Formats: sequence, C-alpha cells, structure tokens
Amino acid sequence: MKKKLLFLFAIVPGLMLAQPKRKVVEAPLYKDAKAPIEARVKDLMKRMTLQEKVAQMQDLSFSEFADGKKIDADKMNKRLKGLSYGVFEGMGLTVEEYAQAINAIQHYMVENTRLGIPVFTSSEALHGCVHGGATIYPQAIALGSTFNPSLVNAMVKMIAPELKAQGSNQVLSPDLDLARELRWGRVEETYGEDPYLTGRMGVAFVKGFKDVDIVCTPKHFVAHGSPAGGLNLATVAGGERELRSIYLKPFEAVIKEAQPLSIMNAYSSYDRVPVAASHHILTDILRNELGFKGYVYSDWASVQMLYNFHYTAKDSAAAALQAVKAGLDLEVWSDCYSTLDSLVQTGALPVKYIDTAVARVLRAKFMIGLFENPYPEFELLKTAVHTPQSVQLALDIARESIVLMKNENGLLPFKSNIKSLAVIGPSADQVQFGDYTWTGDNKYGVTPLQGLRTLVGNSVTLNYAKGCQIHTQNKSGIAEAVAAAQKSDAAVIFVGSASASSGHKYPNATSGEGYDLTDLTLTGAQEDLIKAVQATGKPVVVVLVAGKPFAMPWVKKNIPAIVTQWYPGEQGGTAIAEVLFGKINPSGKLNVSFPQSVGHLPVYYNHYPSDKGYYHKPGSVDSMGRDYVFSSPDALWAFGTGLSYTNFRYSDMKVSKKLFSQKDTCHIEITVSNTGDMDGKEVVQLYVRDKVSSVETPVKELKRFEKVLIKKGSTTKVAFDLPISELSLYNADMQKVVEAGEYELQAGTASDNILLQTTITVK
Amino acid sequence: MKKKLLFLFAIVPGLMLAQPKRKVVEAPLYKDAKAPIEARVKDLMKRMTLQEKVAQMQDLSFSEFADGKKIDADKMNKRLKGLSYGVFEGMGLTVEEYAQAINAIQHYMVENTRLGIPVFTSSEALHGCVHGGATIYPQAIALGSTFNPSLVNAMVKMIAPELKAQGSNQVLSPDLDLARELRWGRVEETYGEDPYLTGRMGVAFVKGFKDVDIVCTPKHFVAHGSPAGGLNLATVAGGERELRSIYLKPFEAVIKEAQPLSIMNAYSSYDRVPVAASHHILTDILRNELGFKGYVYSDWASVQMLYNFHYTAKDSAAAALQAVKAGLDLEVWSDCYSTLDSLVQTGALPVKYIDTAVARVLRAKFMIGLFENPYPEFELLKTAVHTPQSVQLALDIARESIVLMKNENGLLPFKSNIKSLAVIGPSADQVQFGDYTWTGDNKYGVTPLQGLRTLVGNSVTLNYAKGCQIHTQNKSGIAEAVAAAQKSDAAVIFVGSASASSGHKYPNATSGEGYDLTDLTLTGAQEDLIKAVQATGKPVVVVLVAGKPFAMPWVKKNIPAIVTQWYPGEQGGTAIAEVLFGKINPSGKLNVSFPQSVGHLPVYYNHYPSDKGYYHKPGSVDSMGRDYVFSSPDALWAFGTGLSYTNFRYSDMKVSKKLFSQKDTCHIEITVSNTGDMDGKEVVQLYVRDKVSSVETPVKELKRFEKVLIKKGSTTKVAFDLPISELSLYNADMQKVVEAGEYELQAGTASDNILLQTTITVK
Repeated sequence: MKKKLLFLFAIVPGLMLAQPKRKVVEAPLYKDAKAPIEARVKDLMKRMTLQEKVAQMQDLSFSEFADGKKIDADKMNKRLKGLSYGVFEGMGLTVEEYAQAINAIQHYMVENTRLGIPVFTSSEALHGCVHGGATIYPQAIALGSTFNPSLVNAMVKMIAPELKAQGSNQVLSPDLDLARELRWGRVEETYGEDPYLTGRMGVAFVKGFKDVDIVCTPKHFVAHGSPAGGLNLATVAGGERELRSIYLKPFEAVIKEAQPLSIMNAYSSYDRVPVAASHHILTDILRNELGFKGYVYSDWASVQMLYNFHYTAKDSAAAALQAVKAGLDLEVWSDCYSTLDSLVQTGALPVKYIDTAVARVLRAKFMIGLFENPYPEFELLKTAVHTPQSVQLALDIARESIVLMKNENGLLPFKSNIKSLAVIGPSADQVQFGDYTWTGDNKYGVTPLQGLRTLVGNSVTLNYAKGCQIHTQNKSGIAEAVAAAQKSDAAVIFVGSASASSGHKYPNATSGEGYDLTDLTLTGAQEDLIKAVQATGKPVVVVLVAGKPFAMPWVKKNIPAIVTQWYPGEQGGTAIAEVLFGKINPSGKLNVSFPQSVGHLPVYYNHYPSDKGYYHKPGSVDSMGRDYVFSSPDALWAFGTGLSYTNFRYSDMKVSKKLFSQKDTCHIEITVSNTGDMDGKEVVQLYVRDKVSSVETPVKELKRFEKVLIKKGSTTKVAFDLPISELSLYNADMQKVVEAGEYELQAGTASDNILLQTTITVK
Repeated sequence: MKKKLLFLFAIVPGLMLAQPKRKVVEAPLYKDAKAPIEARVKDLMKRMTLQEKVAQMQDLSFSEFADGKKIDADKMNKRLKGLSYGVFEGMGLTVEEYAQAINAIQHYMVENTRLGIPVFTSSEALHGCVHGGATIYPQAIALGSTFNPSLVNAMVKMIAPELKAQGSNQVLSPDLDLARELRWGRVEETYGEDPYLTGRMGVAFVKGFKDVDIVCTPKHFVAHGSPAGGLNLATVAGGERELRSIYLKPFEAVIKEAQPLSIMNAYSSYDRVPVAASHHILTDILRNELGFKGYVYSDWASVQMLYNFHYTAKDSAAAALQAVKAGLDLEVWSDCYSTLDSLVQTGALPVKYIDTAVARVLRAKFMIGLFENPYPEFELLKTAVHTPQSVQLALDIARESIVLMKNENGLLPFKSNIKSLAVIGPSADQVQFGDYTWTGDNKYGVTPLQGLRTLVGNSVTLNYAKGCQIHTQNKSGIAEAVAAAQKSDAAVIFVGSASASSGHKYPNATSGEGYDLTDLTLTGAQEDLIKAVQATGKPVVVVLVAGKPFAMPWVKKNIPAIVTQWYPGEQGGTAIAEVLFGKINPSGKLNVSFPQSVGHLPVYYNHYPSDKGYYHKPGSVDSMGRDYVFSSPDALWAFGTGLSYTNFRYSDMKVSKKLFSQKDTCHIEITVSNTGDMDGKEVVQLYVRDKVSSVETPVKELKRFEKVLIKKGSTTKVAFDLPISELSLYNADMQKVVEAGEYELQAGTASDNILLQTTITVK
C-alpha cells in the first residue's frame, strides 16, 4: 500500500515535494553528478542484484500499463515490482500525453525502485518527434535530397525541445540504411543510396542531438537495406568486403565523428547469420574495429525472431543466449531476456556478459545526465512544440529537397501567361507525411492545392481534380481530370506513393515499413491519368510525391517538366507551390537513382565496372553481356541529378599537387559560375574513380559535396580537402589499404554529368 | 621449306607413313605409355624450355590460321613456329571440317614440334557436339527437367564418338551454374536452380566422358549464375558462407565423384574479387579444399578482362601475373600469358608458378592418353555422327523433359473428339535448338507442327498460324491465328523465347549468352496472341518453348492446360506431339521455379525462412514484412512441379531409425502407387529441413530424388540412403559441421507439395 500511495504522489508533478521523508543516508557515489562516469557505473553496478541488472537489459512499453492514454498506476506497480528497466517507449500518444506518461514512469523509477535508476524514454525522430502535435519535417529521403547536412542539424536542434518537453531522452534514429533495393518499403526512411552522403547526414543528425544530451540510435546495423526480393526483413546476400566497403561506411563516419550512445541492430541476416546473433558484426566489427562505445538496442522483437523467424535458436532462452553473447545489450518488444537470470544461475551464461551489457546501458544514462534530469521539461510544452520557427524550418527543408528533373523549354517556373492551372492527382490535395509520423491527416499540414491557393491568390484560377487513387485501378475520375486540364492553361499532376504513417493508420499504403512493391511503375491508374491529361495537349508538369523512385520512362519521354518532391513534411504544399511559380529556385539533387523498370535493379550509380557488361566499354572485345535485349542498363535518372532555374558553369578544377603520399591531403578547388538570371544553389559533387585497384572498386564514388548559393552572374570557388586515406579499399586479404596508383577526381553536377576531371597519383 | 613440306604431308591422313625418316633415338620416358604419369610429366618438363612451357599455358584458335574452312599450312607454320600449345578450338565448322583441322594441327604438334606434345582440341558439348552435322539434344535446362541423370550419361556416351570422329578430346561443359537469377540469358545452359540436382547431372555428364578419355571442363567456377541485375558477366554479391553452401555444392559433387581434368573459371567477380584473379577461389578452395587435380582453363578472354573490364590489373602482364598466381593455368582467347616469359626472366614471377601450371596441363594430356591417340578417328565420321541411335536418344530425352504444369479437367491428352487442331505461335513451326548449337535451321530438326503432322496423319486436321513473332510487338498475324482456332476443335499455342545459337546467328534472340532480359513477361505480342485465341472459347493448350521461366500469371489463371518444353533439341517436335496426344505420359519436373513477375525475383524454393517475411509464418508477431503490397511472394510454379496423365499416391515413409549419430546413414523408404489408368514415371523428391540451426538454413533442400516408372495399378518402393554427413552446414566460424538436433524429412511430388514427412534426430 505504501508503494502505491507513494506512486500516486509521484505522478502529480506539483506534489513531488510532498512525498514522505526517507531515511537520511549519505548519497551513494553513483548519484554524484561530479564523479567520473566510470566510477559511477562501477559504484552502481556493485549495488545491483542480478535481477536488477537484467531489468536494465529489458524494455517497458506504455501499453503494458496503460489505461487509455494514461498510465494506470496500479498496473504499472504490478508490472514493475520495484524494478528499474532499460528503456521505455510509448507510441501513439500526443506530446502532452507522453510527457505525463514519462513523468509518471520516471518518478516511479527514481522514487520507487531500490536504486532509483531512471529509464531511457524513447521516441522516433526520423523526421520529427512522432508524438501528436509535434512538427513534421520532410521524410528522411527528402532530407537526403537537400544535400545539405546543416539543415538536418538544424532540424534535430528544433526537434530536441519537443522531445525535452515530453521527457524523451533517446531517439530511434537516424536510419543509415542505403537505398540499394528499391522495392523495399523503407527506402523512404533512408538518406539515399550513397554511403558518403548518408554518413554526412547521419553525422549532422547525431551531433545535433548529442549537443543536447539526447541519445541517438543509428539503425539498422548493418546492411538492412538490401533485403532479398526487396521484402522487408529478408536475408541480405553479401560478402565481408562489400559489408565493409559499402554498408559499414555511414556507421563508421557516425561512430567516428559523433559517437552515438546507442545503435540498433538489423532484423536481417547477413550471409546467413542473423545480425542479432552475430558476434562478428555486433562485437568484432562494431566495437573492436569501429570503436563504438554505446549500447546495442534491439530492433523490436529481433531477439525473439531468432527462434520464430530465423530459426537459429530453439527457444527464448537460446535466443537470449545468442544475442547477449553476440553483444546485443538491451532487448526491446520481446521477452527472451527474462530468461537471463536463470541462464546465469544455471551457469549457461557467465555473468560477465550481463555486467558488460548493463554497464553499457548505465554508462549511456550517466553520459546524458539522466540521473540528474530524468523528467519532462513541462514548461517547453507551451513554448517549444510546433512553433513558428519549427514550421519555418520544415518549409525551408521542403524547399531545398525538391528536385527538378526535367524542364523542357523552361516550362517551369510558370510564367504570367498561366492564368489557370489544373491541379490534378491523388496527392494534389493530400499531405503525404511519410512513415514514422503521428498523423496522416491533412489538417496538420499544407497540401499542394492549399499551397498553390495561398501563393497565387486570385491571380491564377486553380481547377482541381483528384483523377484517381494511388492504390486502385479505378479510372472513373480521369475524365474529370481531363476536363480540368482542358479548361486550364497548364496542368500539374501530383502522383506517387502513400505511406503507412505511424501505426499503419493508412490502410492503402504503397510505401513504408512492411509495404514492399514488386513493380515500380506508378501504382493504380496514375500513369493512365498522366497520359490522359497529357493527351489534352496542355503543358503538363508531373510532380512525384513519393517515398522512393518510380520507373517512369514514358513520363520522362513525354512530359516536359518533371519534379520529385519525395514526402515533403507538413509544409510541402507551400514549398512545391513556390517552386512551380518561381518563388524558390529548386536545388535538390537525386539521392537515389531512378530505374527504367523494376527489372533494371539494382540501379545505384556506384556499381562495379563489370556490372554493366561491355555496354559502357565501347571497343572492348565483342558483344557479350553488352546490354539487355530490349534496353540499356542505364538509370532513367542518375544519382546527383537535379536542375535549376539558372545555369551553372564549371570552369576550373585545381589540385594542390599531382603526386601524393599516403598521409597527404589533397586540396581541390572548383570554380563554378551562375551564368543564368536567377540566384541559385548548386550542389558541387566530387567523385573519385580508382583507375586500377587490386579488387574491383566502383566506377565512381562520391567523396565530397557542397551546396553553395551563387548569385546570378557570380562565380564562386568550392574547396575540398580530401585525405588520401579516404581512398582506401579492402584488398584480397581484407586489409584496409590505400593502393599506389592513379585516381581520377571528377567534379560535376550529377554522377552522370561530370564536367571537370583530373588525375592524381598516390605513391 | 622442309618444315612446310613436312606439314603438307602431315595434313593428308593417308600420307602419314610417307613422312621423311627422322634420326633414330631411344624414345624418351614421357613417350612411354606404360610409364607412371607423374614420371612422364617430370621427364617431359625437364626437357622443356621456358618458351615451350609458356606455350602449353596458351591456346590456339582455328581462325588464326584458317583459310576458309581449312587450315592454311603456311599461316599455321608462321603462327606456331615449332611450338606446341595447350589447347586448340575451332568453332563454326562441320564435324568433317573440324576433323581435318584437328588432324592437321595434331600432326604438326606431334611431328613439327621439338617434343611432339599434342594439343587439347576443345569443343562444346553442352547438349551435343557443336560442330555441324552432329546430333542436337535438348538444351541443358531440359536435361535438368528430366530429373534423370542416366539420360545425361547416355547422351554424353552418344556424343563421345561424334567428338572422337573429329578428334576433339576436351569439352567445355557441363555448366554447373545455378539458375537463381532468371533475367540472365544463360539460364538455359544450367540444369536448374538446385545445387543437388545440378550436381547429379554434372556427375553423370563428367563420368560419361571420363570413361572414354574426353576431358570435361565444368564451368563457371564459381557463382557465375547470379550476376547483378541479371546482366551477363556482372559482379556476384555473396558471402563466403553462401559460396560454400550454395554455389560450390555442384562442383564439390563433380570433383569428388567424377574427378574432372579441367575446370573453367567464371568471368565474374565475387565480393569484388574477379575469380580469374582469386587465389582464394582457384587455389585455396578449388584445390586445397575440394581436391581438384586438373587444370584451370580460362573462360575466353577472362584474363584480359582483368585489365579492361574489372580494372584490377593495369596491363596484360599484370593480368597474367594475377591470374597465374591465383591458379589459372591456361589462358584462352586473349594474349596476356605471352608476357609470362619476360615476367619470369625479370624475376617478377617465380618459375615455379609456370612449372605448376604446365605440369597440370601435361598431366591431363597424359591421363587421357593424348600422346598415344592424338588424331581423329576418321572411321567414326561415317558410323557415329547423327546415327539412328543418337536421334532416338535425343527423342527419348525430349520426351522426359516435358513438364505438364496445368491440366484442368484432363484436357490433355487430346481425346478422339479432337478432329481439328489449331497449331499456333512463333515456335509452332520453328525448332528452338537453344544456345551452343551449330544451327538454327529447321531442316536439322523436327518442328512441333511437323511432329504433329507425322503423328496424327489424316486423323486430325491441323490449322497452322504463326500469329506473331517472339521479338516484336507486331500483332498483324493474330487475326489469322484466331481464325485458325475458330475453325478447330482446340488450339495449341507455342510461345517462349529464341536463343542466340552458335555464333549468335539468330539476330533476334531473347535468350542465350549475352541476351539478358529486364522483363520476364512473354516478349513481343505473345501474350496478346494467347489472349486472343483464348477469347475464341476453344480449349487452349499453351506450350512454353523457352530457355528460362517466364512470368505468366494470366496464362496460369486462364488457360486450362500448360506445358513447359524448354529448348527440346532436334527431336522436340515429335516429343511434344506424342505428349499432346497421349502417346507419351509426361514425366518432367520443374528444375526452375517460375516467378509471378520479374519484380518477385529471386524465386528459388530453397530460400531462407526469413526471406519471405512473416507471410509464411501465420501467427507470428504482427504484419510487418508479411507480403508485397499487391501480391504474395510465392512462386507461380515451384521447383519440382510436374503433373502426369496418371495419379500417384504417396502412402508410407519409413526411416531406418529415429536417432542418428554423425557417422550414420539414414535409410528412407517411400511407397508410391500409380492409382490412375496409365503407366507413368514419377520423380520422388526428398527434401530436408534443418529445424533449428546455428546459422540460417533454407526452408528446405533437395537431398535425393529418383525417377521411377510405375505401371498403372502398381505400387513401388523408392529407397534412399542419406548419410547424416550430408546434413552439414557452415557455422559462424565457417566450419563445416553437422549440428545436433531435429531434421524434417519431407517426401513429395514437388517442393511445395510435400505428401509425407517425418522427423529424425541427430545427436
């Protein structure tokens, strides 16, 4: 009864001081904020029972002791039994509700557990805090197409107070998977196909949160983004060299530069070994090689899946044993780690594994000052959630993420001769927020139609017609769309995909977690809609609002202006309106290559020389493997593509010298001029081609990029420092080495549009 | 002049004895047929100059000294300069012409080189000797669907005298690649997707030739069949465990059981390392682990491709160095090994590499008695080429390769009520021989229309219409096909693919080497043709004449009877006619799974449990990754599928015991009855599922099969011995082990139609 009473006090913030007095004892070392962290960990660990330790390796879910949207103190009491746990999560709540829940649970942890260890309180933050009321930024794939890591950094700094308001101290982001398998529904959660770009975005993300003591959980370690058949969770085929050369790269950058305190393992197996049970991946590589010091957080139920999905464990105890020994510190969403006590007691598991894991969890808790500041900052609820500043930032990012892919005869931006505009398509009056958001409701965002209305006011008549749905073949609305186009000077068609959103609320999703496609042509009747509108003869713009590239060769060939917006966040409707009418000059670049068809996959730009047969090697031997029977193997649009309303001229590329030693840094300067008549931002891209290497290396790899604003008529120099050590590869003996020889430096405006190049030699 | 004169004598077989006398010396040891082979190799090697050794590591091509279809003695003389080479090839000749060429070159080798070393004379023999006039058997993919290795063995024994007649002593077959990437044009050259089936077929092939001293060259070592994007020659992504567990299996069986004297390396790279330069693959694995004792023959130009395709070597000398050190003994079709002399002389390459490689080539020459019998057996030209027996065997194999995939209401075989039959489709009156044949001309085979005409005589009226082509969208012929169907009692439509054939003579190929597809729907207007004919309401049979599975969900749903014939060889027209009219009861089984679409790839049956998400695991967790948005991940038709005109009942499965030690053999007996009213052959398939394994293992793996003829009303028992050692896997430490635990034995008539099962335990 006493406990319960205590608890009831605890959950009312204002009554905190009213709790009954405890025995006065000297505060233990671990509660001393000034003590060194290792000493605090050691002190706390020695006080803990095995049961208390094991609880730190497990999670709690709001649903376990919820009564509606609130915590039920009685249920919580029964569930917790005086134990503190590792992490707590509560999806589906508003920021306010989650703040209340976190406050209650943290008070319980601090006051009703023997050692008073607070719990990590997790949230998603892929493109905004997922709790109701928070700002929704463009989806990760749209963050990637900005090619502007500073915007990602600004975003997380704006998300942080929303998280602080509700008391969240850990986020299950960023997603560092690579979009190399485009059938996969989670492509939208990635920053794109490129390891370097993904690393830069990931570093900006993790650093931003680190500055404010929020734990990031980069995921999914590792190689999760290339599942067999594109089916979520499926095996990833790949070798040790590919693992290191491609998939580890972004994690390597993030661990080195931003030291995340947590990492989430992948569900999938790599070369038949489930990552959750892979000592090689979770310990040898992650800790011993990459130097990760934080704790490994299990992707939800991935420990359990060792016995009911991968079938590498016969029961929950065997699964727990495999995972803990591999180096997975904290199990979430399944209940195998509850067997750890008895595994230790029976001698099956040496207690050192428990101690190691718990120390990692606790160390992270100390490092963010969790013992000192476990509670929500309620005052931020009113001042920091969905503020004018956060809304402006969501808009700024949406603007920079838009990619202009085709603009025949300068159709865009619309000129003053456009007095009426047909606004067509299933996403014309729908906000596509993307997966991992808390709502799919238009009222929390600006649709393209709304954005256009606000922008053009009465100066342009807007004729709206939905035309069709994303997920059905129903063509009955096409006639209305055609009529709208016929009575307009031009038409804009918003097509693409719809995402599951949080909790899979959208029943007809074609994108998002668990929503994988076998075909990448536009779903439903969307291409029929485009063709019908195009047949009117009116100038047509197609805007792709989507979570992944779609195969649109007909559109590329027949539609004069094409824009990719990805999932643009709550302010996306305003941003696209501004781009269409020239208030904003588009500056996004494709972070994922577009395929001609699903049968052309994979289509990433950084393939190996031999991957496209002889096709790209005119003059070589004969015709074998030169091409597909009916088409080329080329991308429809390649990585890095993105046009502007102005023109950029690349005129000079200087390197500091031509011959380098292994420890040198190559300094590169590229001159770019804005020769058009509008200010604009250009993403200057630097690729490197290792001309001859002892193992196959990609035809080119992005090594640096910078987005620069160049005023019309101006010229700027973009400078890059490229340490020669970054030209390393994994040789036949799996040693990381920089090989002597020639390297081609290529600068350009897209991976397939290299404008300047020079060769350096490494001795 | 003397040399030239000699040569002129040599090329006229009848004048062989007329050559001028040489000095009489005691015959060297290496020429003593009774001496031990190692002694002969050693003796010969010590007599050879470096130049002579290096020549043994290189090839000669007929085209280098051809004058039309004959060898030009002068050109040969100039090219050879008294040196003997490793191997000689001459594509595009008739058997007679090649016999003349080989006779000339071997006489030169024996008589005009210092040491008189004969040359290997290579031919293809994938499904027949590729030289003009020889018998053309069903393509490899059709050999695979017989599930009858004894037919493959019979085939090679029949091909052998055709090869002997022309003097060929090495064949560049079998192809042990696995059909796991169905876009690839060379799927037709494989025995299918399964490692075990492929191994059985490969063993039968190599043993058959070994018995008659013809060298086989299993290819492409290794993993060549899974190129990125399905594009020929592209990189293969995969790990060490997958390499060993899947791709090596057929080679392992063939090396262990049939000891081939040669192996051909793959063009592709595996995990970024080109196989031609991989010491790990060509030496550590191939020789040290698998115990291969023969010589490695380079796939054509694959050494050169190290510098102009993979870019792992800077020039031909570097390429040669990489390849020789890796363990590639003989270079074909490119000229990097001509640098070996100078590489040795400058000290870049220790001569031991040369000695090792040359010894392997020479050992193989001694092993087949080449020094004793280097010449064509001219007398066989008249008695052994395209004989009634070989034609009969080609027919027998074609019969057994046909797979009945659907037969609604017993439409097939046609009953006597069918008085007229529309014979439709681009392959209805065309023999589809498949790649690696010497002709694409109908006159060398029997088309389906011809086969039907011969079979039915005047009893059924045949109304032929081509309908459309395989490679164009031209639909103008469809109306004629519809008319043919309308005036007939039923229609058979022959659709599929057309292969390049030898030398890519067929300009519009959609299959074969270098003919890869991005889409697996039937090409051109073929599906339109089927739909139009089906719309007539007449009973329709679709026969797929192809080199690979096509995605035909509409056909599966709407056409009552469907047959896959693959490329059936010269007698295929007769075989299909016999099956359609019930003279032959079909008994083939699918050796490759059919996909619903190209976007469903990969579709092989032996995927991992996690590969199809939760879809196949009802009751597991939630809905994530359960399925594709618009379809299931299942195969359209699964591996092992194949119906019969009779019915088989599986009634009992007995195992010798239930608990096994690692060294035991499990004896399994399965009772099968023919309960229908026609004699028939059934392929009884035994799969094993490792229920819990420390690394992921496939959902099932074929471990045994047997094709048995069961008379109507009869019952038979099929017995298998399965050594427990065959249940091994490669664990996390890459050790090959059999793990203790339960194994499910599944017997059935297809991989997705398991009729009996039992579980055994290994302790």
